[in-house]
Amino acid sequence: MDFAIPEHIQKMRADIRAFVDAELIPREADFDLNDGRALEASLQAVRAQVKANGWWAPGLPKDVGGLGLPLTDLALISEEVARSPVGYFCFGMQAPDMGNAELLHMFGTDEQIETWLKPLAAGDIRSCFGMTDKGTAGSNPTLLNAPAVKDGDDYVINAHKWFTSSYDGAAFCIVMAVTNPDAEPHSRASMIIVPTDTPGFEMVRNIPVMGESGGGWFSHSEIKLTDVRVPQTNILGEEGAGFLLAQKRLGPGRIHHCQRWMGICNRALELMKQRANEREIKPGEVLADTQIVRQWMAECTTEYMAARGLILQAAWTIEQRGFAEARDMVSMIKFHAANVTQKVLDTAIQLHGGLGMTDDTPIAYWWRHERAARIFDGPDEVHKLSLGKRLLRQ
Amino acid sequence: MDFAIPEHIQKMRADIRAFVDAELIPREADFDLNDGRALEASLQAVRAQVKANGWWAPGLPKDVGGLGLPLTDLALISEEVARSPVGYFCFGMQAPDMGNAELLHMFGTDEQIETWLKPLAAGDIRSCFGMTDKGTAGSNPTLLNAPAVKDGDDYVINAHKWFTSSYDGAAFCIVMAVTNPDAEPHSRASMIIVPTDTPGFEMVRNIPVMGESGGGWFSHSEIKLTDVRVPQTNILGEEGAGFLLAQKRLGPGRIHHCQRWMGICNRALELMKQRANEREIKPGEVLADTQIVRQWMAECTTEYMAARGLILQAAWTIEQRGFAEARDMVSMIKFHAANVTQKVLDTAIQLHGGLGMTDDTPIAYWWRHERAARIFDGPDEVHKLSLGKRLLRQ
Amino acid sequence: MDFAIPEHIQKMRADIRAFVDAELIPREADFDLNDGRALEASLQAVRAQVKANGWWAPGLPKDVGGLGLPLTDLALISEEVARSPVGYFCFGMQAPDMGNAELLHMFGTDEQIETWLKPLAAGDIRSCFGMTDKGTAGSNPTLLNAPAVKDGDDYVINAHKWFTSSYDGAAFCIVMAVTNPDAEPHSRASMIIVPTDTPGFEMVRNIPVMGESGGGWFSHSEIKLTDVRVPQTNILGEEGAGFLLAQKRLGPGRIHHCQRWMGICNRALELMKQRANEREIKPGEVLADTQIVRQWMAECTTEYMAARGLILQAAWTIEQRGFAEARDMVSMIKFHAANVTQKVLDTAIQLHGGLGMTDDTPIAYWWRHERAARIFDGPDEVHKLSLGKRLLRQ
Amino acid sequence: MDFAIPEHIQKMRADIRAFVDAELIPREADFDLNDGRALEASLQAVRAQVKANGWWAPGLPKDVGGLGLPLTDLALISEEVARSPVGYFCFGMQAPDMGNAELLHMFGTDEQIETWLKPLAAGDIRSCFGMTDKGTAGSNPTLLNAPAVKDGDDYVINAHKWFTSSYDGAAFCIVMAVTNPDAEPHSRASMIIVPTDTPGFEMVRNIPVMGESGGGWFSHSEIKLTDVRVPQTNILGEEGAGFLLAQKRLGPGRIHHCQRWMGICNRALELMKQRANEREIKPGEVLADTQIVRQWMAECTTEYMAARGLILQAAWTIEQRGFAEARDMVSMIKFHAANVTQKVLDTAIQLHGGLGMTDDTPIAYWWRHERAARIFDGPDEVHKLSLGKRLLRQ
Repeated sequence: MDFAIPEHIQKMRADIRAFVDAELIPREADFDLNDGRALEASLQAVRAQVKANGWWAPGLPKDVGGLGLPLTDLALISEEVARSPVGYFCFGMQAPDMGNAELLHMFGTDEQIETWLKPLAAGDIRSCFGMTDKGTAGSNPTLLNAPAVKDGDDYVINAHKWFTSSYDGAAFCIVMAVTNPDAEPHSRASMIIVPTDTPGFEMVRNIPVMGESGGGWFSHSEIKLTDVRVPQTNILGEEGAGFLLAQKRLGPGRIHHCQRWMGICNRALELMKQRANEREIKPGEVLADTQIVRQWMAECTTEYMAARGLILQAAWTIEQRGFAEARDMVSMIKFHAANVTQKVLDTAIQLHGGLGMTDDTPIAYWWRHERAARIFDGPDEVHKLSLGKRLLRQ
Repeated sequence: MDFAIPEHIQKMRADIRAFVDAELIPREADFDLNDGRALEASLQAVRAQVKANGWWAPGLPKDVGGLGLPLTDLALISEEVARSPVGYFCFGMQAPDMGNAELLHMFGTDEQIETWLKPLAAGDIRSCFGMTDKGTAGSNPTLLNAPAVKDGDDYVINAHKWFTSSYDGAAFCIVMAVTNPDAEPHSRASMIIVPTDTPGFEMVRNIPVMGESGGGWFSHSEIKLTDVRVPQTNILGEEGAGFLLAQKRLGPGRIHHCQRWMGICNRALELMKQRANEREIKPGEVLADTQIVRQWMAECTTEYMAARGLILQAAWTIEQRGFAEARDMVSMIKFHAANVTQKVLDTAIQLHGGLGMTDDTPIAYWWRHERAARIFDGPDEVHKLSLGKRLLRQ
Repeated sequence: MDFAIPEHIQKMRADIRAFVDAELIPREADFDLNDGRALEASLQAVRAQVKANGWWAPGLPKDVGGLGLPLTDLALISEEVARSPVGYFCFGMQAPDMGNAELLHMFGTDEQIETWLKPLAAGDIRSCFGMTDKGTAGSNPTLLNAPAVKDGDDYVINAHKWFTSSYDGAAFCIVMAVTNPDAEPHSRASMIIVPTDTPGFEMVRNIPVMGESGGGWFSHSEIKLTDVRVPQTNILGEEGAGFLLAQKRLGPGRIHHCQRWMGICNRALELMKQRANEREIKPGEVLADTQIVRQWMAECTTEYMAARGLILQAAWTIEQRGFAEARDMVSMIKFHAANVTQKVLDTAIQLHGGLGMTDDTPIAYWWRHERAARIFDGPDEVHKLSLGKRLLRQ
Repeated sequence: MDFAIPEHIQKMRADIRAFVDAELIPREADFDLNDGRALEASLQAVRAQVKANGWWAPGLPKDVGGLGLPLTDLALISEEVARSPVGYFCFGMQAPDMGNAELLHMFGTDEQIETWLKPLAAGDIRSCFGMTDKGTAGSNPTLLNAPAVKDGDDYVINAHKWFTSSYDGAAFCIVMAVTNPDAEPHSRASMIIVPTDTPGFEMVRNIPVMGESGGGWFSHSEIKLTDVRVPQTNILGEEGAGFLLAQKRLGPGRIHHCQRWMGICNRALELMKQRANEREIKPGEVLADTQIVRQWMAECTTEYMAARGLILQAAWTIEQRGFAEARDMVSMIKFHAANVTQKVLDTAIQLHGGLGMTDDTPIAYWWRHERAARIFDGPDEVHKLSLGKRLLRQ
């Protein structure tokens, strides 16, 4: 066993930390996450610097312009990048683009790679992923019912999708639709690439989430496809392979989220430390002098460190032994790290008092929006039940 | 002992419930809590109906136009009114106006009552309460340092206040300022009524809280008073009695918050029940059929019922035996009910899945904004420490 | 609503408290709960004093020698009696005798009342209740399969029962056995009174529970009935009514347990207070001076007070409106109060440090043996699931 | 980073697992932990087999007959050994002997090594450690006051010690006593080796802990030293270095406890799995089929895995970088793993129902006795406060 961080990653962590401290954190106060498109635009210069520094897309393969870092290294980098709410966006690591790029890399045709993956990986366009049909339980994808019917060389798609994150401003959407209605439940759907400017593709609204409709990359849209027509060559992978591909996409997707939470916890703990040392509660005594705050700091750091270790172990297992071997561990970290993150953020708010409720720190943003961490990509309960079932199997 | 709800309160509860169901809940979808002033305006018609139905200001004394309900009855009414986020506003029960009205009723001069209390109690004007100086810990009010200096017949006040809730649009602010800097710490400050249109009184900003600056009644402002001059007759109560009055204000204020949380929990549990029965997770099976959801419903309802009982007992104790006798119980419910409310709302989000994150139900609003419940009017820890100290005293 | 404790109960509480302080607590150090029969014998003198003071069997009806207290008064008395682990035994309130006495009072024939109830209610004999068949889940009583077959005027019973509390030294056992194997599941079993000296009735062992086999009243026995023959007149109630009677017995039984936990929590909080004030942790500073211990005291007292209120409300509801009306509340308190009790005891141990692990206080006894509180008379989960199901029913 | 278990340790784990399954677990039912001396004697044959298999004292240095395993390997071995409550005793890993042996190895004179360490390391004698003076807080060792006064070539010791684990039957005790009363608080005490048959050395009692006085290795004694006289050469290390040595002893001691808990959790999870698959709750349905039990299994396994990872990381850090570097992590695992263990055991009891309360599985034993895990070697709070203080230091 070896818990040492490789030296080159140590250095990269330090450099990125300094960059985030200098370029992203000071600008946080001006971020208006509620006006996502403007914010996106204002971050393009930072992205250019990231590229110039040789840090762009650390998780994407080298052949599409990424750094091709293995998952454990990526986790260690993420711990620094995700200290800012816009870190992932600035470093080309943001969902859903990263997952879509991985899908296209694994299953895309040459033409799809040229048309969609290359500009996506370069950060020139954005994408989205249209999964859950409105009115059906996202936790059970076999309930999906939006049809994609063959007509000539095309698919004609009708769908009403819900919670299509980052649709607003995306160039294309990977739409899950039922191409094989008579197949057995897990072989009915396919993934189809649909440019968002295709006739019949419309946005119903950016769903207000925790008070914010966001806009741009920060949006979660309700969308409608009415007789939307795309060539059959837009299919990704085999017909009926939608679920299979979704699994391929969600596995790493889950670990990417966990890695992002590492950076969030890292920053929250820093902010706690800083505030505890600055905030005078009576003359000559600061929060850091009190038992309560010391206990919080100890508990939060410890729970974070334990969760972090499990995330790293899961990343290493995927990397060294493949996803099948790591399946249980990925379920574990998905719900465990999400809950630890919520606890750390909750404590960070409490430590900050009134300030913790405001947007003068990023804590309140994370606290309200990362509440979704326990829901997206499989709610806690879905992971616990399937993991528990597997663990109990004799 | 008698746990029966009096019959006339039973009836009033049923009537108010029907009213809230008919008049407030259907309009929730259109509420834009981020545009507080417009929302306020749009609710005036409902307020008029509430008045017409004889329900206005159930907690205020009869001589200023309220119903003068005792605290236990008020709690039972609140359980219905607070089922909507705007319930308190529509029924004339909203903070900080209610606390300010109570203060004015107890300590106001005839002139103050005429000028400020009457229109306030009638809902014709709004008010705010300027307590915490920016940069000092609100949990320790002896750190307050904004000076109010006598000059001729006036006080000249300089202050930079933080988290002055509902300042935006208020007619006056009760400002805590140091009138007696040389007195012992708890006798230094006084409460002074300052009309918000007094020269030198300015708003720095509506602080963005959990992503929302709010506006109007829904705001939390940072304000500045620069050489603001008001007649010395604007003082409320004795000079130096600021803390004494604040205690008188906060005691009932805390129980009003707890009573409001009763309504919030009540509604959240209803929404959970409704969603659990509607949401199909596989053909023929809804959430309500699962062990997980049944367990949640049982746990949340039970914790709510236990907290509710303690709130009612505290209300009864204040009402029958005075505040001093109820002091420990008020500390208990302040932190206990706040935490139970957070747990219920957290579970309600989880049960709703993605929908729980959106503003399509009021749950997400309560979840993010009532996070402050564990902070305002004394953070959990301040209550626990002072309660624990008293309990351990021999 | 009225939360006042009636004056005569106030007085009785104070008197009993003084008695428990004087007669039971000082002798606790000598109790050997592992030698139950000797301990039982040594407590007979205290029982005589209790009778002389007019306090015997406060929960049993007057016509069998009890005080016939209503359930809410009984709860308030229990809060004092149960401060000692032997309080219930000394006051004639101990399970399973009290539940058996209630059963006999409700359903016994004149002869059964004369033969069994009278000496039982007087404390002259003890009893037990043989429910769970070894190897079947106690949480699902329909799995019960021990047969009682009619033969002439007798029943011939064969059974292997598990966890028959207080069998060791009991004069009779109420045995649940299947008399009607062909009836629908809830109508198959009957309750039959079986004297423990009947031939074929043997004890396999006193099951070691948390390291202690106990003995006497403190035992939990595994028993075997081999062709045990009793007259058919020994049946309690109707044939096949076993489950119906068990429900009648368990409802109040659950609330009796909750009421006992009130006394346990009451005492644990006292011990915490005492220890915190005595234990020096550095020169001039005791545990009570620390934030951690103050927080514990506040949290434990608050959770206790909330649980206590719900127990009292449930007792009042049974008393005033009948058991059916109180059903949900009884489920609530069964699991909620059991968990609060465990938390209070756990904190009490932590506060006492090493001493908390020893039998020099009663805390360790309660902590290990009341762990069963979350299991007996329906595990937490069984109550939560059935309660949740009812709450979700539209 | 590398999370792979070395191959030779994999094999050793598998072999030891098979041994524990064959030799220890089947005999558990006959263990009477309350009669410690007899149990100790009955385990000597197993110890001989362990030695014959080349597994004796895996944590002790090779030069005294141990295997000299590094700490991470030791943790991985412990995960198998500690699956039985007597595993550590049978493999020569038991406290307090192991800690004492480490002390003697680091600081003993040649004579002390010959006389005490060799037979101790060989398992031929047992030892104990007399730390806490009765009536003082063990969590603050500077309160220690038992004097050791020089007289001629001897020390004359007077002490009343509390919770001297495994005194009963030990050949010697390492006694902490004040040799330099006028030095600064952390330099006042020394460690002195005192044979237990020295005149004036007496046992007051084996303290009943959780109902069991234990006896032999399973005891926790209250002891008295009255004018006990030993040669000054019996001092261990320098005069006044008692605390320094205690720190050297406690650091690894804490990690040994954590490693033991790994085995306990490992076994508890196995028992849970087995029971869940066997226990029918209705015809055709076992516990393992329910959501509740699946959720428990998932949560317990996940928390265990996260805690386990942190223990391994702490062990690796001590091993590779020294104790100073690992200090924070050791504090973390001491309280974190103790709490996870308690949670796992608590859930294991609940899953087993009534059976969980009995001594028919080892769960109840661990649950009651490992409650001390959160107290000994520094209570949770002491670790949290000192860790939190260090983390907050700028």
